[in-house]
Amino acid sequence: MVSNSFAHSEEFSTEEQRGLYKAIFSRRDIRTFKDATVPSDVLARIIRAAHHGPSVGFMQPWDFVMIRDLEIRREVKTLFNQERQAAACFFDEPRRSQFLSLKLEGILESSLNICVTCDPTRAGVVLGRNSIPETDLYSTCCAVQNLWLAARSEGVGVGWVSILKQAQLRQILGIPHHVIPVAYLCVGYPVEFSVDPILQTAGWRERLELNRLMHFDGWETSTISADWQNFEIELTDNSTKPFDSP
Amino acid sequence: MVSNSFAHSEEFSTEEQRGLYKAIFSRRDIRTFKDATVPSDVLARIIRAAHHGPSVGFMQPWDFVMIRDLEIRREVKTLFNQERQAAACFFDEPRRSQFLSLKLEGILESSLNICVTCDPTRAGVVLGRNSIPETDLYSTCCAVQNLWLAARSEGVGVGWVSILKQAQLRQILGIPHHVIPVAYLCVGYPVEFSVDPILQTAGWRERLELNRLMHFDGWETSTISADWQNFEIELTDNSTKPFDSP
Repeated sequence: MVSNSFAHSEEFSTEEQRGLYKAIFSRRDIRTFKDATVPSDVLARIIRAAHHGPSVGFMQPWDFVMIRDLEIRREVKTLFNQERQAAACFFDEPRRSQFLSLKLEGILESSLNICVTCDPTRAGVVLGRNSIPETDLYSTCCAVQNLWLAARSEGVGVGWVSILKQAQLRQILGIPHHVIPVAYLCVGYPVEFSVDPILQTAGWRERLELNRLMHFDGWETSTISADWQNFEIELTDNSTKPFDSP
Repeated sequence: MVSNSFAHSEEFSTEEQRGLYKAIFSRRDIRTFKDATVPSDVLARIIRAAHHGPSVGFMQPWDFVMIRDLEIRREVKTLFNQERQAAACFFDEPRRSQFLSLKLEGILESSLNICVTCDPTRAGVVLGRNSIPETDLYSTCCAVQNLWLAARSEGVGVGWVSILKQAQLRQILGIPHHVIPVAYLCVGYPVEFSVDPILQTAGWRERLELNRLMHFDGWETSTISADWQNFEIELTDNSTKPFDSP
């Protein structure tokens, strides 16, 4: 068991910082799970990590639907299969066959499924949510990322299944009409945390060059300052890449 | 400088895991900054952390607009002030006065601002995005959370300013019409990482009890299994709370 407290403003040790970056860079979308149960104490820690996500106006719009029941999971799997067939129609060959050959979920094999939802009515008038109402969904996604990283640090894999219709998923789980099922997650011990994302290894899509996603002092800038030139060098310099994949 | 690589499937040491939870539990929404510049190498690491967020179909829909220019930031601050006055009308007294007394941004005082955007057209037909088109936004938010946690591990504070109109922000930064400015972030060295969220300390809103946000094998369940009873105990048991705030 790990130590129980820390001063909130204290600096990170090198190894603590390494742990944070390690979780970020070795987190994977897991679809292949071992037949092993995630213990309650581990689950409690990753749910608590999610609950400590940021939220607009401290709204905390999330709920967690924990699903071990196999009958319910089979219904979700059937829904996934329907949506997968429908989604295949959007791709031309050879992309369609490749899409259908990919394993995209571990709904039944994982230890459990977790549906993270967003309740837009959670806190009445929410501080900071007038201008951009979607910030409740944004908050929920930040909580999901906390859950995902905490799970990685526990050796637990998470796979986000997005090939599901929200209305039907709501019906299967009995979620009220006004609540949005944001993330349907498969959770369990993975066969591996692969070095690269599955879709990269499968040749589906490459990681983009980070320099091409950067803009300085506005979207279009003809000249950039010396400050930003230094930053661009750091961005491509391997020596500043602690914990990154090879 | 920290060590440069790790095996992707290796377990976390106790201190590495502590680092991950420490970032999650001591991350704060920062609005008060010291007058100090965030160096380029630190910035490069936190942007790279964001770029390693999960994304639907490996879409990587994000761009990063880095803003040091004070003229641009003043325009954003003016926009914030307008929206803040408009938002105040939604609250009745004494809530309205309390709202107007809160410091909600550090646009000008921070070292820089970063606008993280989402381009829905990034990758043509995106694997996994047919059923829930908003998954591009969800991915972008996960990237933002990576950035936020990486910054925390570097001692750098991040404040998300959501009291801004997206259309006008797009205009100020010259962002194309089809691109969504998801997160406007103030980034810099904070005066402190407070023990509790600002809105909790200010008495605006309490942290919700986690047990009340849990659902087992469906939204409404009259009886829960022994498995879930154990989990509920863990959730309230302090001994399983490593790294949590006191």
